[in-house]
Amino acid sequence: MKIAVIGLGLIGGSIAKEIKTRSLGTISVIGVDRSEKHANRALELGLVEGIVELEEALAVADIFIVAVPVNVIENLLPQLLDGINSQQVIVDVGSTKGDICESISSHPMRRRFVAAHPLAGTEFSGPDAAIMNLFSGKKNIICEKDKSDEDAIAQALKIFDFLGMNTIYLDPSEHDKHMAFVSHLSHVISFALSHTVLDIEKDEKQIFNLASTGFASTARLAKCNPVTWTAIFEKNPKYLSEAIGAYITHLQHYKKLVDNNNWKGMHDAISQSNEISRVLDGIKLNATKA
Amino acid sequence: MKIAVIGLGLIGGSIAKEIKTRSLGTISVIGVDRSEKHANRALELGLVEGIVELEEALAVADIFIVAVPVNVIENLLPQLLDGINSQQVIVDVGSTKGDICESISSHPMRRRFVAAHPLAGTEFSGPDAAIMNLFSGKKNIICEKDKSDEDAIAQALKIFDFLGMNTIYLDPSEHDKHMAFVSHLSHVISFALSHTVLDIEKDEKQIFNLASTGFASTARLAKCNPVTWTAIFEKNPKYLSEAIGAYITHLQHYKKLVDNNNWKGMHDAISQSNEISRVLDGIKLNATKA
Repeated sequence: MKIAVIGLGLIGGSIAKEIKTRSLGTISVIGVDRSEKHANRALELGLVEGIVELEEALAVADIFIVAVPVNVIENLLPQLLDGINSQQVIVDVGSTKGDICESISSHPMRRRFVAAHPLAGTEFSGPDAAIMNLFSGKKNIICEKDKSDEDAIAQALKIFDFLGMNTIYLDPSEHDKHMAFVSHLSHVISFALSHTVLDIEKDEKQIFNLASTGFASTARLAKCNPVTWTAIFEKNPKYLSEAIGAYITHLQHYKKLVDNNNWKGMHDAISQSNEISRVLDGIKLNATKA
Repeated sequence: MKIAVIGLGLIGGSIAKEIKTRSLGTISVIGVDRSEKHANRALELGLVEGIVELEEALAVADIFIVAVPVNVIENLLPQLLDGINSQQVIVDVGSTKGDICESISSHPMRRRFVAAHPLAGTEFSGPDAAIMNLFSGKKNIICEKDKSDEDAIAQALKIFDFLGMNTIYLDPSEHDKHMAFVSHLSHVISFALSHTVLDIEKDEKQIFNLASTGFASTARLAKCNPVTWTAIFEKNPKYLSEAIGAYITHLQHYKKLVDNNNWKGMHDAISQSNEISRVLDGIKLNATKA
């Protein structure tokens, strides 16, 4: 089997590295990246066996993993589907699914495409961010399973199983709504926190001497790549706006509790929020840090 | 030297455990806790050599570490200062400093008191949350250094140095303002995120299957203890309200960028927020997890 990974950043690079390393050469992994710098770096790091142009990949690979920003996926997919034969399979791993599924819904080769989203990542980006064990024990989502050929789904599952993931099935709008609340909102939260504290730093030079692990945790995602995340937000505006709006309402409630000196209410609110423990305890953290 | 730790939760318990374990018996550590359950558990866990009543501790200890909720510190301090002699030292480790310093400012024994705040913690609480290496490599703050006797400061520093901390000096209101932005706000952020997603769960049962490491990071602090954190917020309402207000303004800006489909503006905003990397890279994470 020969896999072509298109886009050798954090996600594509980590998939390539894991398969190339753990398959011990039984699966061939080649890479495609329109950034020459990233392509060379991926080769240097040994993430892939070789770098090829897209046309060459189309001629030789059995499966394509598309791991470029979600707006680029949407533009690239029709071209890829135009170029494959009826045995080849294309799997995207983008963080939004509605627009992507919509964009190729009437393509004659639609059934060779599998819309996926492995739920894994770190705050780092580019080929240097590629790590082993990023996916192990985590969830993968496949959307519109019934619109893909059975053998295409089976081949995609082989890869996600190889990565150690559990696959679940959702429809694209359900996926995008859920992701707005449990992933995209978290990123906006970190970005806005970063601005808030950088503003204060203008007058209070010492403030960051005092930042500790709690701050590091809530601000961590503010290191995330602007190209990747602008594209994700652009492809999920309705649900993201809804999530930010709901979140602001809760923050305003906390501010009101403070402004009204309502400490009984504050205690009750914090106690209720503690209920999230049951969720957090079930989330597997990354085994390896970049 | 004999140290009495008053309050054997996450912070007090970790201080006791570290000193008792690493001093190999050269420093004696006893504990005081008004919760019999916590006291017994601390003894079982070997955090302290023995549990005593406050009166007995006052009769035998050289240094007192006060690690109870900040509102309780404020009530307890006058009583402690009434009970000590001019060689004994009281060090509090509360997360707010303004009201605490104010409350004993005119006490005749003020100079035997050191107002401190070791910047360390986890989302866990109680004696079982006590861990080794919680403080190593992190910052400690001392406020109103000049209002304490030199030998009292020296003895407090001996403890914080022993824990591996770097001590810096701030005035109480500076401390409370900084903490509102780089610590207390982060907790409100996690609490409000928890509510937002628990609300959604009522209709979308599957949502938490999809929560991943990004969510875990931004929601982690929502596990924090309601008693501890209500007290901290109660003792820092002005700056906390200011911090939440500034934060909401930034979130509203992000929401507007989404609602206006301003993706160029979004890219610029995320890029600016990335500047936080230089800060995050300097924060030492906990060596040991509870």
